[in-house]
Amino acid sequence: MDNAKKYQPGYYNPPETTYDWVKKDHIEKAPYWCSVDLRDGNQALVVPMSLEEKLAFFKVLVDIGFKEIEVGFPAASETEFEFLRTLIEKDMIPDDVTVQVLTQSRAHIIDKTFAALQGAKNAVVHLYNSTSVAQREQVFRKSKEEIKQIAIDGAKLMNEYAAKYPGTNFVFEYSPESFTGTEPEYALEVSNAVIDIWNPTPDHPMILNLPATVEMSLPHIYANQVEYMHKNIHNRDGVRISLHPHNDRGTGVADAELGILAGADRIEGTLFGNGERTGNADIITIAMNMYTHGVETGLDFSNMPAIVEAYEEFTGMTVGPRQPYAGELVFAAFSGSHQDAISKGMNWRKEKNLHRWTVPYLPIDPHDVGRRYDGDVIRINSQSGKGGVAYILKQNFGFDLPKDMRSEVGYMMKDISDKHHEELSPQEILDYFAAEYINDFSPLDITDATFNHYSSTKEENLYNVKVRAVIHGEVFHLDGEGNGRLDAIRDALTKTKYDIQYDFITYAENALTVGSKSKAASYVCIADETGKKYWGVGTQPDIILATVNALVSAINRMNKEKKFM
Amino acid sequence: MDNAKKYQPGYYNPPETTYDWVKKDHIEKAPYWCSVDLRDGNQALVVPMSLEEKLAFFKVLVDIGFKEIEVGFPAASETEFEFLRTLIEKDMIPDDVTVQVLTQSRAHIIDKTFAALQGAKNAVVHLYNSTSVAQREQVFRKSKEEIKQIAIDGAKLMNEYAAKYPGTNFVFEYSPESFTGTEPEYALEVSNAVIDIWNPTPDHPMILNLPATVEMSLPHIYANQVEYMHKNIHNRDGVRISLHPHNDRGTGVADAELGILAGADRIEGTLFGNGERTGNADIITIAMNMYTHGVETGLDFSNMPAIVEAYEEFTGMTVGPRQPYAGELVFAAFSGSHQDAISKGMNWRKEKNLHRWTVPYLPIDPHDVGRRYDGDVIRINSQSGKGGVAYILKQNFGFDLPKDMRSEVGYMMKDISDKHHEELSPQEILDYFAAEYINDFSPLDITDATFNHYSSTKEENLYNVKVRAVIHGEVFHLDGEGNGRLDAIRDALTKTKYDIQYDFITYAENALTVGSKSKAASYVCIADETGKKYWGVGTQPDIILATVNALVSAINRMNKEKKFM
Repeated sequence: MDNAKKYQPGYYNPPETTYDWVKKDHIEKAPYWCSVDLRDGNQALVVPMSLEEKLAFFKVLVDIGFKEIEVGFPAASETEFEFLRTLIEKDMIPDDVTVQVLTQSRAHIIDKTFAALQGAKNAVVHLYNSTSVAQREQVFRKSKEEIKQIAIDGAKLMNEYAAKYPGTNFVFEYSPESFTGTEPEYALEVSNAVIDIWNPTPDHPMILNLPATVEMSLPHIYANQVEYMHKNIHNRDGVRISLHPHNDRGTGVADAELGILAGADRIEGTLFGNGERTGNADIITIAMNMYTHGVETGLDFSNMPAIVEAYEEFTGMTVGPRQPYAGELVFAAFSGSHQDAISKGMNWRKEKNLHRWTVPYLPIDPHDVGRRYDGDVIRINSQSGKGGVAYILKQNFGFDLPKDMRSEVGYMMKDISDKHHEELSPQEILDYFAAEYINDFSPLDITDATFNHYSSTKEENLYNVKVRAVIHGEVFHLDGEGNGRLDAIRDALTKTKYDIQYDFITYAENALTVGSKSKAASYVCIADETGKKYWGVGTQPDIILATVNALVSAINRMNKEKKFM
Repeated sequence: MDNAKKYQPGYYNPPETTYDWVKKDHIEKAPYWCSVDLRDGNQALVVPMSLEEKLAFFKVLVDIGFKEIEVGFPAASETEFEFLRTLIEKDMIPDDVTVQVLTQSRAHIIDKTFAALQGAKNAVVHLYNSTSVAQREQVFRKSKEEIKQIAIDGAKLMNEYAAKYPGTNFVFEYSPESFTGTEPEYALEVSNAVIDIWNPTPDHPMILNLPATVEMSLPHIYANQVEYMHKNIHNRDGVRISLHPHNDRGTGVADAELGILAGADRIEGTLFGNGERTGNADIITIAMNMYTHGVETGLDFSNMPAIVEAYEEFTGMTVGPRQPYAGELVFAAFSGSHQDAISKGMNWRKEKNLHRWTVPYLPIDPHDVGRRYDGDVIRINSQSGKGGVAYILKQNFGFDLPKDMRSEVGYMMKDISDKHHEELSPQEILDYFAAEYINDFSPLDITDATFNHYSSTKEENLYNVKVRAVIHGEVFHLDGEGNGRLDAIRDALTKTKYDIQYDFITYAENALTVGSKSKAASYVCIADETGKKYWGVGTQPDIILATVNALVSAINRMNKEKKFM
């Protein structure tokens, strides 16, 4: 691949660059949002939406909170004409929502465009013509003056037509299309010519849209271009500067963000960045980025899974698993160290009773976009460590494993995942955990244990116990005594015909608050004569019996290796 | 969604900001590239790669041209240890390729890491520890001094271990992990402490990696942070500043690009941005962005479809249709005006014999990444216009429709696509076009036409013709004369028992250079008495007969509407 000489940067720097934008830290106020899903988005689909799909998608956009929605090019497309007329005639446009339509600068098209809007309460009429060097030379083969005249003619006609339709509240928008391939001083000249004709004021504003029709530069260059326009256009206080970035270089979101710092007031984009080629700027990401900096955006993505579902249904596109704020995997932590940090961060949050979100590796609280901690965050595969498995067992099922037990269980799950070559769901983790550790009553079972507490001193806590044990079906009635209940059982078990010998190491217990409220879980660790440890887990409504069950499970696990019964 | 107060920017600005980077226009030299596909990429997969898949993926990365490849964390993972040992023992690492391994700052881990590298010719040993406020407070619960000491201890141990393994050429890398959540002055303090221990020189450099472990700010803030490090680290000329951006805010590519302007020498990233959560910075996009500005990158993406295929096979992930430079739709133009501009841009290129790429709406020549003009660029659906259909018929099949015919054929295809609710492939376009226009010999057929040219003057070009016509199976032998061949046939056809009346409007012809070389295509337009036009197309090796066929087809098309035969 040695052909790079075929390319040179194809954009133009402004004649003066002020770099005010770079000194700003973050975006402090949400811009006006305009969805172009039904135009740029739709026209880039292999199969464009049907009328019914468009109407349903329009409603999704309204529900999210969009107040400006581009609905098409009614004079150029029968289907877009029909869509607009249906919206108007069926009264589907809320009073606070403005539909936006595109028009070229040609009399019969402008005529048809205004006619198509009849009956709309509010409308943005969006005039555009291509101003880039490439389009002037190659496509239109016209001079700068001729291209500017196209814009001027259209702008004048729009003034005339608006006067003919007093029933609609019109806002005019002009785009020097292919702005990013246009010399900024020429884009300014054409834009100012249009501004002078429309003569906008703060009470009667217009929109000047600066599309990155094709993304051609690093995003800071676009910001410089936007700032130049921001500082040099006429009637600045009557003009809303709008950006319409595409994503050819994968930096459409950055274009929008730096462009806002550079003076833009408005963003045109789409859900999940749908749009021609690499797509348009993704409004969800831009808005959610602001949200993570504490800015209210006016858009509601609190049920992101439902938005994903609707989007996929209507467009036929798929939201990828790494799509910011929305993809299946964007909150997932498979790695042990990430899981551990998230788990500690969640505890810290609880401990400090924090409202502010500070959990490592999670840029936002998944709940804020309708996602769950369970299943979406800590996920277990062969890359995961003990922390993740312990977290799942605790969060989903209430098992609060003792710290010493966690790495053993973690490695076990990692191995299973590695061997089966698949992720383990929380249920599978529970199932493997239960099969290995919980209430294992074979070959040894203790069917009854009656304790008698007979002495308590500072050092000792003495018990007698009568145990009914069953081993390989044979019943043993055993007496024992010891320092604590478990020690008494240990003593009793030495009296069978089997060589049941172990050291008791430690135990822990907790209530299983999730799932079955009334149960307790107990964790017992014993060791053989070499010091090798065996954990067992017991569950039972009674905590004493849960502990006996845990002990029995541990002994049976030891027996699997040592075969003494 | 009114909970934004839960969030505040969680990053830290440097104490001094110089903004030198913003004055740079574009990247002039490719950085060192390091693929972390086999570490960050792999650990973020629902099902991590098997050993065989990793070995095959490693080869793909080498073939693309990566000279530094992170292969895992051998001391923490048996499977990554095995992978590294296999690469070394099977001699799969080319001499000019360096493998990179991660290690925490703990003696037994560093020990195992160096042992795992035995026999490697070159290796980057990558030491990291978390330095962010959140991790210090919540995860490690340690002071700044204690956290710095972790880095210092690890750095010293690495010096000791490297001395024990003189057979390998080691380069050391240090990452203040979670750099973007760390106060830059503290990140600088820790980094300088490590630099002072490793004491790098231009001949024996080290790598200082500044990860955006979680993307927390707009990309220009990251650039400011990078520039601060670039200007203030010790031994700058012995340090390669490396960036490792993630993509939580959808601006990982912008982070890398602005960070390079700010002084970075090296990028860690993955193919298609695979990696934890939203992924890592996408090296393909970053490199291709440079390529479009004329920079040789050292990476070869000239067969992108094969890279997509391998990536999808090994990772189980999917490359989305809008993935820059690689997705199925990134060169697609469905809209009429885009198709028209591309078509004109391609003609301009041919006309001017340009090497430089300037075609509107196509940021690069699709051929440079192994894509086709046919099928990948001009695509036809209900949003498309006449230009696209005409382009397809010409490029794929050699039919050069007369300008007046294009919009009729364009609308026909648009309607078919709209009704069938599907994209039309080039073959389908040809099939519909042929069924409607080409060589329609029913009910009228002309099975023989013998011309006699008898007079040529400045105004006239007179012919006699003997026509053998068949209409609904009945044979007619007809004589005619006229000004030109087609006019002579028109005269002959008035002499059947049917009322065959039409005006001849125009005709055009071209050789069908694509497909069947020896054939010609002819396009004839006639009109009925109301002026309504009917086109027909004929193909035949002989151009005269092709024209007769076109005329017959036009007459039969007219008959479909007017039923005179």
